[in-house]
Amino acid sequence: MPMRLIGPVLLAGPEVTGEFMVPLSTYESPLWPSTARGAKACAKAGGIGVVITDDRMSRSVYFEAPDAAGAVAVRDSLEVRHTEIEAVVSGTSRYGRLKDIHFQVVGNLLYMRIAISTGDAAGHNMVTLAADRVMAWVLSEFPSLSYGSISANFCTDKKVSAVNGILGRGKSVVAEVTLSPEICEKLLKTTPEKLASLNTRKNLIGTSLAGGVRSANAHFANILLAFYIATGQDAANIVEGSQGYTLAEVRDGGLYFSVALPHIIVGTVGNGKDLPFVQENLELLGCLESRAPGENARRLAAICGATVLCGELSLLAAQTNPGELMRAHQTLERASS
Amino acid sequence: MPMRLIGPVLLAGPEVTGEFMVPLSTYESPLWPSTARGAKACAKAGGIGVVITDDRMSRSVYFEAPDAAGAVAVRDSLEVRHTEIEAVVSGTSRYGRLKDIHFQVVGNLLYMRIAISTGDAAGHNMVTLAADRVMAWVLSEFPSLSYGSISANFCTDKKVSAVNGILGRGKSVVAEVTLSPEICEKLLKTTPEKLASLNTRKNLIGTSLAGGVRSANAHFANILLAFYIATGQDAANIVEGSQGYTLAEVRDGGLYFSVALPHIIVGTVGNGKDLPFVQENLELLGCLESRAPGENARRLAAICGATVLCGELSLLAAQTNPGELMRAHQTLERASS
Amino acid sequence: MPMRLIGPVLLAGPEVTGEFMVPLSTYESPLWPSTARGAKACAKAGGIGVVITDDRMSRSVYFEAPDAAGAVAVRDSLEVRHTEIEAVVSGTSRYGRLKDIHFQVVGNLLYMRIAISTGDAAGHNMVTLAADRVMAWVLSEFPSLSYGSISANFCTDKKVSAVNGILGRGKSVVAEVTLSPEICEKLLKTTPEKLASLNTRKNLIGTSLAGGVRSANAHFANILLAFYIATGQDAANIVEGSQGYTLAEVRDGGLYFSVALPHIIVGTVGNGKDLPFVQENLELLGCLESRAPGENARRLAAICGATVLCGELSLLAAQTNPGELMRAHQTLERASS
Amino acid sequence: MPMRLIGPVLLAGPEVTGEFMVPLSTYESPLWPSTARGAKACAKAGGIGVVITDDRMSRSVYFEAPDAAGAVAVRDSLEVRHTEIEAVVSGTSRYGRLKDIHFQVVGNLLYMRIAISTGDAAGHNMVTLAADRVMAWVLSEFPSLSYGSISANFCTDKKVSAVNGILGRGKSVVAEVTLSPEICEKLLKTTPEKLASLNTRKNLIGTSLAGGVRSANAHFANILLAFYIATGQDAANIVEGSQGYTLAEVRDGGLYFSVALPHIIVGTVGNGKDLPFVQENLELLGCLESRAPGENARRLAAICGATVLCGELSLLAAQTNPGELMRAHQTLERASS
Repeated sequence: MPMRLIGPVLLAGPEVTGEFMVPLSTYESPLWPSTARGAKACAKAGGIGVVITDDRMSRSVYFEAPDAAGAVAVRDSLEVRHTEIEAVVSGTSRYGRLKDIHFQVVGNLLYMRIAISTGDAAGHNMVTLAADRVMAWVLSEFPSLSYGSISANFCTDKKVSAVNGILGRGKSVVAEVTLSPEICEKLLKTTPEKLASLNTRKNLIGTSLAGGVRSANAHFANILLAFYIATGQDAANIVEGSQGYTLAEVRDGGLYFSVALPHIIVGTVGNGKDLPFVQENLELLGCLESRAPGENARRLAAICGATVLCGELSLLAAQTNPGELMRAHQTLERASS
Repeated sequence: MPMRLIGPVLLAGPEVTGEFMVPLSTYESPLWPSTARGAKACAKAGGIGVVITDDRMSRSVYFEAPDAAGAVAVRDSLEVRHTEIEAVVSGTSRYGRLKDIHFQVVGNLLYMRIAISTGDAAGHNMVTLAADRVMAWVLSEFPSLSYGSISANFCTDKKVSAVNGILGRGKSVVAEVTLSPEICEKLLKTTPEKLASLNTRKNLIGTSLAGGVRSANAHFANILLAFYIATGQDAANIVEGSQGYTLAEVRDGGLYFSVALPHIIVGTVGNGKDLPFVQENLELLGCLESRAPGENARRLAAICGATVLCGELSLLAAQTNPGELMRAHQTLERASS
Repeated sequence: MPMRLIGPVLLAGPEVTGEFMVPLSTYESPLWPSTARGAKACAKAGGIGVVITDDRMSRSVYFEAPDAAGAVAVRDSLEVRHTEIEAVVSGTSRYGRLKDIHFQVVGNLLYMRIAISTGDAAGHNMVTLAADRVMAWVLSEFPSLSYGSISANFCTDKKVSAVNGILGRGKSVVAEVTLSPEICEKLLKTTPEKLASLNTRKNLIGTSLAGGVRSANAHFANILLAFYIATGQDAANIVEGSQGYTLAEVRDGGLYFSVALPHIIVGTVGNGKDLPFVQENLELLGCLESRAPGENARRLAAICGATVLCGELSLLAAQTNPGELMRAHQTLERASS
Repeated sequence: MPMRLIGPVLLAGPEVTGEFMVPLSTYESPLWPSTARGAKACAKAGGIGVVITDDRMSRSVYFEAPDAAGAVAVRDSLEVRHTEIEAVVSGTSRYGRLKDIHFQVVGNLLYMRIAISTGDAAGHNMVTLAADRVMAWVLSEFPSLSYGSISANFCTDKKVSAVNGILGRGKSVVAEVTLSPEICEKLLKTTPEKLASLNTRKNLIGTSLAGGVRSANAHFANILLAFYIATGQDAANIVEGSQGYTLAEVRDGGLYFSVALPHIIVGTVGNGKDLPFVQENLELLGCLESRAPGENARRLAAICGATVLCGELSLLAAQTNPGELMRAHQTLERASS
């Protein structure tokens, strides 16, 4: 898949500070100049602030109990035996540590969602192994239960949900920038007022009209896909990654613009990361350094969030003007072909 | 991205008949043997029936009217002027023909969603161009309206929604197979009863608990991603493609197993299709033949749906057994590394 | 249940023009003065514009076909036999006329949603009877199908959904008003800016964070319940009625404020309407006059929408100020006890 | 509103044991005999098991921080200052005790959801007062924050959501019964197989097709409305109460039937409870006894859940047979008029 470096994308802390040329792989060539335009405007404005607000990986399993009362009794017991469950989880990997357990009861079915830390890995396999062992332990401790399934869709992996945003899954990233009216005008051909209005009417109201869930953005998915492929991620995770919030408000005459990505799934080790071009890209982003466990992956998530902001900003700006989107596509695709 | 041919996947009509080696690109190597196992079971059962139930591409725009009454008046007028809108659409491309218009009114905002046919293209640009021209025409016919945006998220592209399933977007595919208890036992190490129960409790109830929308499946996203990358599709469309229904029921002792993919976005021409390996893969699947407009893309969608069925069936079967998923991942990833 | 008349609520056309004292039944006494405050502000601003954008009642059924291809074949056949289905529907009641048919296919299951006009009735029974007869007719015409169920939840009645807003069910009402900064300040103790910002952050973003669907409002449910009980409606329909959109924007310094209720279910004849106090209330609202079929119910829906606007406006205004909501509740409940 | 006593509804523990005549207020008269039929079948089967799995009341507020990093810093600080927040909450009422705090960050906005115990009250005002005081305390401790709103829709009250089911709100009730094929046949005119199949295809698949969220049932809303009105509840809470799960499976030849109501809002003290007929009804159900705080309200919730099960079972059974629903409505409404 064709790849290009876009940028520099300027991150202004607190999570990461510095300029980055970001690799994006895509069949949709207009994505490159569009994201680059956003990056330029943000750099001009002083850079993009980024924070990581959460970090964990989750999997849910389910058990069958004799009846609802039996399911609730097990749940109540498990809720006071966190220490034992922690020990089971810790025994399964070097980095996996229990962060949270959550239950749901439907009839006599007991759904159990566990969340763990996963170091620099995205952690799909790590959490599946942890869940597998926890499940075996629960079944041995509570013989009244039967095996239901190692995956119960309350996890939830590569499927849209509300649970991932409410309980957390993967990295939660918020990126933000404030742009002067001049930057909006010169580099984005728009105004703070037009962009803020578009965000409310398109991303918030339009998404709701469409029956979307926990989401309000124009095209997080495009940028995530390109970033994931280029950095060796399991790109099917753009499904949940695409759910997130763009906030655009006029403040003191300028444009406050932010993207919140509550659950993107990225890692710097694991499947796909050994490919030479992936190693090269991760190194370019400074994500193969010797750091505390998880820090490289957090850094990658922060750069990812900032890049999503650039792409989102630029597309929204284009859509505030009649005809601009179509002209851009026509020009760029002709140019790239 | 690593690619392998999986199969043969046996399609048993009515949309497509024949055996296919299907290219799948992924960083997640266990996907290959798992999907292949499903394909083998289905071929043994006589093949997978596939129907395409719908085919269209959509985009929404929005306008600002002076007030709600004004917005409704324009809507009422447009609803009886389909012929004129059809003419505008038909003037924008060789294959784009108006199929449907739908409106929503929120306050004084008028949202308008148009759906068109797009021949063998996925049709993103085709429908954007059509929407662009329709919008210009509407603005000229109704001077009381102002430009809102060329994209209003009621389309909806690469974002989860209910609207795509209710009004249609892309190809709607249903694939199905009936497996004897013996095939379930020998090739999938499960029983019809166990698999049907898992589907209800995991895919239907579990997804609902997670706050999912219009969806009940285990991992459509994984197979779609691998298929989309290998065939040059815009893979960000797995976001909406991942929404769909797995139906598994015990019938006369056997397992009726079906996947419904209400809105997958695939084409055989357009961005990404000119790459040599993509051309090779499309040719391998018989999707570059001389056929009526749209027939190659339908064929591709049918093969895609059948492949999704194979991957979904195999994973669900594995999850009916304690420990199997984990063992499979560990064995396969060791083997592939 | 305690009832009071609130108002006058001033409607300024185009659907209905005039002043109304609106009956509201509730156990929550603060609702009365709060709604009255909103009504006063709106009257001062020149009244509330109201339009009815749609009117229909729906029910879905499902059939079981031999396979998916069989289900699609029946669907295709039914789509060109609208005239016959219209005749079946028309034979079931004086007012029920077919307005729309919509299908969904999952595996070999065929879901069919019919929408009809229902005159002045809410139309639950009318549409059930129509669906019952249509179902019998389909089963006789297509012997390959089996009976699934007379209600398939794709209707959908008294349950949250996206389908009711996208395809329509009940009356769709949009009410709007523009308030000067002075009215906001004097009568609502707020500013256009504060209220518009609250609407975006609470009703749009907050609802999305909560995992809400097709909805962005503060408390439509409260006002609908009180109005429904007082006018003899089936108040369980507040479930879907509660889904709707509040739009609040600063325009030329003033506050544009609108509520869109895409699917409220009200009637002036049918169950509950014969009770003496209900007759009295309907008469008070001018909804028992001799009008064309459906016109009394539309009038009732318009007044309902305007009342919802009053209650929504007042509560949102209160929430822009620290402490006001709590003080209001404490004062009012003490006063009413 | 017309009211009747239905039953006896037989509860078989563990939460509550005994026979109850349950008051239901409704304009829809067929609800009475239908629910009574369900109650009879369940009593014949040995009664309905009921457990309360959770109990709390919640409200969300939001703050504005200078930027996202500032919002996250406050969140991190608050997460280790639970004891102080507990003290603020405990100072606001006799029964309100902090149970949980949850945060969301979107841009520079900090959403905070608190959950408290509320004794025998539904607790709307109690939790609003607690939130009001917590908010004031947070604003005084973190001067960088500004007031956003006392209610941020992440609560969420009387609006559909996923958050109420995932984090809890109100009482979470699970009721269940196992019916022999004979009882199904004689009292409900159906079979376990037909009813289980209908539940999957209508309540699970049909609701998902409709774009429903965290819900799979036929008509919880009807029974809840009738029960809420009769017992003085704020009936607008049927909006969230209507979201819940019916589970119906064939087990050892019989029908396992369960309803899970994850968040119903009921109390035995507070607004509406002082009305004479409400006092009478609460006394009839044994919910005005001298018990530990919260026990009367739990008892009421348990009886409510069992009654919902009776009504749900009966309607689903009717819908398994062609024509039965329509005949029942016609007969009953004629009889009641």
